[in-house]
Amino acid sequence: MEKLNIADKEFSSRLFLGTGKFGSIAEMEAAVLASETEMVTIALKRIDAETETDTLTSCFKPHHINLLPNTSGARNAKEAIFAAQLAREAMETNWLKLEIHPDPKYLMPDALETLRATEELAKMGFIILPYIHADPVLCKQLENAGTAAVMPLGAPIGTNKGLKTIDFLEIIIEQSKVPVIVDAGIGAPSDAAKAMEIGADAVLVNTAIASSKDPVQMALAFKLAVTSGRIAFLAGTGASRNQAEASSPLTAFLNL
Amino acid sequence: MEKLNIADKEFSSRLFLGTGKFGSIAEMEAAVLASETEMVTIALKRIDAETETDTLTSCFKPHHINLLPNTSGARNAKEAIFAAQLAREAMETNWLKLEIHPDPKYLMPDALETLRATEELAKMGFIILPYIHADPVLCKQLENAGTAAVMPLGAPIGTNKGLKTIDFLEIIIEQSKVPVIVDAGIGAPSDAAKAMEIGADAVLVNTAIASSKDPVQMALAFKLAVTSGRIAFLAGTGASRNQAEASSPLTAFLNL
Amino acid sequence: MEKLNIADKEFSSRLFLGTGKFGSIAEMEAAVLASETEMVTIALKRIDAETETDTLTSCFKPHHINLLPNTSGARNAKEAIFAAQLAREAMETNWLKLEIHPDPKYLMPDALETLRATEELAKMGFIILPYIHADPVLCKQLENAGTAAVMPLGAPIGTNKGLKTIDFLEIIIEQSKVPVIVDAGIGAPSDAAKAMEIGADAVLVNTAIASSKDPVQMALAFKLAVTSGRIAFLAGTGASRNQAEASSPLTAFLNL
Amino acid sequence: MEKLNIADKEFSSRLFLGTGKFGSIAEMEAAVLASETEMVTIALKRIDAETETDTLTSCFKPHHINLLPNTSGARNAKEAIFAAQLAREAMETNWLKLEIHPDPKYLMPDALETLRATEELAKMGFIILPYIHADPVLCKQLENAGTAAVMPLGAPIGTNKGLKTIDFLEIIIEQSKVPVIVDAGIGAPSDAAKAMEIGADAVLVNTAIASSKDPVQMALAFKLAVTSGRIAFLAGTGASRNQAEASSPLTAFLNL
Repeated sequence: MEKLNIADKEFSSRLFLGTGKFGSIAEMEAAVLASETEMVTIALKRIDAETETDTLTSCFKPHHINLLPNTSGARNAKEAIFAAQLAREAMETNWLKLEIHPDPKYLMPDALETLRATEELAKMGFIILPYIHADPVLCKQLENAGTAAVMPLGAPIGTNKGLKTIDFLEIIIEQSKVPVIVDAGIGAPSDAAKAMEIGADAVLVNTAIASSKDPVQMALAFKLAVTSGRIAFLAGTGASRNQAEASSPLTAFLNL
Repeated sequence: MEKLNIADKEFSSRLFLGTGKFGSIAEMEAAVLASETEMVTIALKRIDAETETDTLTSCFKPHHINLLPNTSGARNAKEAIFAAQLAREAMETNWLKLEIHPDPKYLMPDALETLRATEELAKMGFIILPYIHADPVLCKQLENAGTAAVMPLGAPIGTNKGLKTIDFLEIIIEQSKVPVIVDAGIGAPSDAAKAMEIGADAVLVNTAIASSKDPVQMALAFKLAVTSGRIAFLAGTGASRNQAEASSPLTAFLNL
Repeated sequence: MEKLNIADKEFSSRLFLGTGKFGSIAEMEAAVLASETEMVTIALKRIDAETETDTLTSCFKPHHINLLPNTSGARNAKEAIFAAQLAREAMETNWLKLEIHPDPKYLMPDALETLRATEELAKMGFIILPYIHADPVLCKQLENAGTAAVMPLGAPIGTNKGLKTIDFLEIIIEQSKVPVIVDAGIGAPSDAAKAMEIGADAVLVNTAIASSKDPVQMALAFKLAVTSGRIAFLAGTGASRNQAEASSPLTAFLNL
Repeated sequence: MEKLNIADKEFSSRLFLGTGKFGSIAEMEAAVLASETEMVTIALKRIDAETETDTLTSCFKPHHINLLPNTSGARNAKEAIFAAQLAREAMETNWLKLEIHPDPKYLMPDALETLRATEELAKMGFIILPYIHADPVLCKQLENAGTAAVMPLGAPIGTNKGLKTIDFLEIIIEQSKVPVIVDAGIGAPSDAAKAMEIGADAVLVNTAIASSKDPVQMALAFKLAVTSGRIAFLAGTGASRNQAEASSPLTAFLNL
């Protein structure tokens, strides 16, 4: 399958994983390896303690899996930018998943603050992947501000509801010049496959894998689904229609 | 992955293919091989001519792919039973996909005639896989009549509309003692994955592969999707919910 | 609005009500009156005791609301036919809502037994309105057997899930020569409006009204929704499309 | 039904109408009257010519229908603010439907520019009703900026696709302190009823009425649907569930 390019990196896998909500570090590591992902996102909140940073880093470094620190918990651009700088130092990467959500209940992203932070962070040399609402105009503005990709949500984060925003994702995919990575709400491999079938460049999954009874097997299922959806997109799915093509009855045959 | 048993046969693949609507025999053969299916269904209408029977048979026999003749075009039990007998002779198999649809426009299956034919054909020693509406009570009646599996539709045949009957499929899957194979309407690999995620034992796909711009690649995509969905079903997908779990703000961290 | 004709009766209202699950007889009566329905269905199970029959009958007779006894609880044609005969005697009507559901968990209708009972009951002079799966072929068979209307379900009964079977209801409506009354699953007035918009002749509602916090107001809401949907169907809803028509920018104007 | 208050006005009707796309002024006027709306929105683009302003104004003034000029066509805050000032003068109202959509193909609203314009226009004394994405965080920001209401879209404008954003509308409705008016995508009365059932304060409809074969009847259908949905919201719709409550078989009765 053709590679996915984001900024200066090339990815064979179009599945990115979140690392939260797993039962243990060992379970998380096993799921990450089963998924064959090449990039995982880690909340900066979790890497403030020296020890855990080391644990997480040492977990993925040997497998050459890229770390994508995220600013989950930041409530505005200022907090996110500060967190980004700490992340760059602590994790030795200028890649950043930008998450700004002032509302702790639904964790809905803040369009305005995300755009502001993107403008700032791009000037500071960050490779930015912002988590946003499936808002086509915002996506173009982020593109102009220098984002490396856009990460529109499929449904409210953590809900496993699937691709509720599909009508808007299709517009975003049609218009975007940077990779489109569907980032939240994906609850099952079929949702991931669907996102890929409509032309998303990649998906990021966390809750659906981490909250499964068997996260390692579920990671494997997502790996296959993402590959399947990408192949189907390239092959071209048929249009839906309201009736089958006419079928001749057996009559002629039976009358032989 | 664990095997699927239908009657006396064991299948490693849970994807069955229809052979209609392909651009050529060669394209069909290539798609069938790419899918790694172990059983394909062939309309009896297409095998009445000596030549074509030979072509189709010689196409699959070397690959040890089972042939499942179907009675597509039959308008009632009588026609279907007659066709079944011809099929058994011509294709040397007592396996049968039973299709009875009196209406040539939508090809909707006939519950009553299908049940009647199943009762007769079971006595005649056929291994019957009937194509039916997603009707839970009918499924149990077919089971009592000796069917080897049930093949409820996901959407009107040939429409690529996906799993429109999912609420009924879930009841059928919960109650069935024979394998449940979702048979019509599957328009994309994500639909097939979804069917497997809710616990279907297998899916049968035709239009979505044959009408793709690249049937061979699409067959591969379906193979991966079916495997993915089965693994996800066994691993257990998480429930959907209305909000994410609470996330602590970065405050504490930023205040360090 | 034009009248609805079923058999020999003419209805101004296209909303029928079930009478189960209400908190009290008084609440039920008030909801029925608010709905302005002209026909309510009553389970034969509830009218076996002399007293309750009188209560229910005396409740609706003064308002000239037709009683439609139903055979809810019948598990096969034989039980349904016996119940129908009792109902005809007890309630002095040959109208009958035929319900046959062998499975007590999901109350799914039995196609075969319903068709059998319809054939018998039609000969016995009953006006039959059968509750069935949204199965287009079965609907035509019931029509041929002399049914006065068909009552396909929108979703499993009592689930409030809405019009899950819409793709099949559309086929049924296109093909039916007798009135199509959507009978189960309708959970909100918007579902009832939708059923009417696609061309259903009427809807039957019970759980959604009876289980509301305010059944009387909910009955009123359903009355308005059914009228709305019917008017919209006659006026013709526009097709959905993928983008708006082009809109010229304000430029020219601003440049004036 | 209780009144809807927006800023200093009180509305008995919760249905607002757009005036574009009608076949003629007379048809539009008849539909507006049939809908019993108390506020219609008019594109500033259409009122630049002296004559048409007079026509439209004289059309609604005698019926005491409020005019809500909109800035459709504006591509940024600056254009919208300029248009708003012209509208205030031409139409003698400080009410304004703020629409900013830089993309002429899908007419998707611009969150950032809309927020900027709202901040400016609020200071200038406008009563602002902004058309926006169904973005819960943006809605709170507009509220803080002094908006009189929020008008999130249900689906891409002009598509008649219905309430595609329902999961986000529910969050907006839960959190908003100003009225929530669903503004785009509503394709049928059932969609309007649904919006009201989940607690929207009002809906704005244009394409679905104007593009109907009979706009006057369709306007009437929407009037009933909006009333129905509001009543249902106040009465409380029941939750959906996965199976009916257990139903006792007729056995006991039949054994009497």
